[in-house]
Amino acid sequence: MMALKEISNIRFCSCHDSQYIKPKRMLFCENGKERSWDIIEAHDSVAILLYHQPKDSFVMVKQFRPAVYLKESTRKTPNLKVELGYTFELCAGITDKAGKSLKKIAQEEILEECGYEIPLENIHKITEFYSSVGFAGSKQTLFFATIDESCRQNQGGGIDDENIEVVFIPKTEAYDFILNESYPKTSGVMFAFLWFFKNFEGC
Amino acid sequence: MMALKEISNIRFCSCHDSQYIKPKRMLFCENGKERSWDIIEAHDSVAILLYHQPKDSFVMVKQFRPAVYLKESTRKTPNLKVELGYTFELCAGITDKAGKSLKKIAQEEILEECGYEIPLENIHKITEFYSSVGFAGSKQTLFFATIDESCRQNQGGGIDDENIEVVFIPKTEAYDFILNESYPKTSGVMFAFLWFFKNFEGC
Repeated sequence: MMALKEISNIRFCSCHDSQYIKPKRMLFCENGKERSWDIIEAHDSVAILLYHQPKDSFVMVKQFRPAVYLKESTRKTPNLKVELGYTFELCAGITDKAGKSLKKIAQEEILEECGYEIPLENIHKITEFYSSVGFAGSKQTLFFATIDESCRQNQGGGIDDENIEVVFIPKTEAYDFILNESYPKTSGVMFAFLWFFKNFEGC
Repeated sequence: MMALKEISNIRFCSCHDSQYIKPKRMLFCENGKERSWDIIEAHDSVAILLYHQPKDSFVMVKQFRPAVYLKESTRKTPNLKVELGYTFELCAGITDKAGKSLKKIAQEEILEECGYEIPLENIHKITEFYSSVGFAGSKQTLFFATIDESCRQNQGGGIDDENIEVVFIPKTEAYDFILNESYPKTSGVMFAFLWFFKNFEGC
C-alpha cells in the first residue's frame, strides 16, 4: 500500500512519565567494586524476512520513525526533510500479546503490515539476537517465509495509527541495497538478506 | 585478555535523573491527526569487524550487559545465572569524542578493547545502519580491518571500569556461531560475518 506520508508540525517536549520508556538503574558489584548502569526495559520483538517468489523480491516495510528523525535532525541542518525519518525494515512487531506464540505474532504482523495470510507451518524460525545491548537489550526473534499473491488478503499498511508502506526489493538489487547508506535501515534486514543468499544460493 | 568475571549483589532501583537515558516526547501531525511518540536520544557508535589472518579467526569482545541481564531475568527463573548477561559483540564504542573522525574513534576502540594498533589506512568503512528504530534510532558505522600479532600493543580488555574479554571465533565456525542462540549476540555481528563471507569468499 502506498501510504500517505504527510507529517508536519514536528515538536519535542519533555517526558517524565512515559508508559513506553522507563529508565531503570542496575546496581551491582564487579570484582569487588560497586557499579551502576542505567538501562531501559524495552519490549522484545519478532521480525520476518518475506521472500516473494514470483516477484523474486524481498518484501519490506517503510515507515516514519520519530527516533531516527530526531537523530538525523541533530546531524543535518538546515532544511531537514521529513524523509530522513523513514526507515526500511523487515515486517516486525513487539511481542506484547500474552499467551500467543512468537510464530503466531509473526503471522499476525505479516497480515497487518503486508497483507499476506501465511499458514503457521510455512513460517520458519531463523535465529534470535539482541538490539542496543548497551542500554536496552531487547531480543528479536527472526523468522522466514516464502509468499506469493495467492496469500494476499488485503493491502497491508498496518492497523490503528500505523502508516506503513509495503516495499518490494528485487533480490538482484538486495546486496547493493543493504550497503547503500541512502536507504536508512536496520542491521536485522542486512543480516536477513545475507542469510538468504548464503542459505539458498550459496553466496 | 581473560577478564575476571565476578559480578554479584545485583539490584535495581528507580532512575529519574539518568545522565545517559533521557526520554523525550515527539509530537507531530500525521495526515491531519495529532500523534506523539516517546523516544530516547542514544549515542551513535562505531563497530569494527576484525579478522585475524594468521589465526583465521574473527576477534570479538565479550562483556556483561546489564540491560541483557535484566531482560533475561524476566524470562528465566529460578536460578538465574550472571552468565546470561554476557554478550558476544564486535569491538565497538560510542562516538562521543568531539573533533575525532569515526575512523579515529574506531582505531582507539580496537586498541583499548582488543589491544591492537592498526594504521588508519588499514581500517575500511563497510556501511552504516540503525539500531532500535522504534525508540532510539542510534546509528552505527561499521568498519573492517585485517590484523595480526605484529599489531599487538597490549592485552586489551578496555579502559576505566570496562571488563572486556577478547574472544577469537575461528572463521570455519563463524556461521554456526551466528545461528547458535546459546551465544547471545547482536545482529551487527551476524551481518558483519556474512558480509565477510560474501565479500571475500563469495559464499
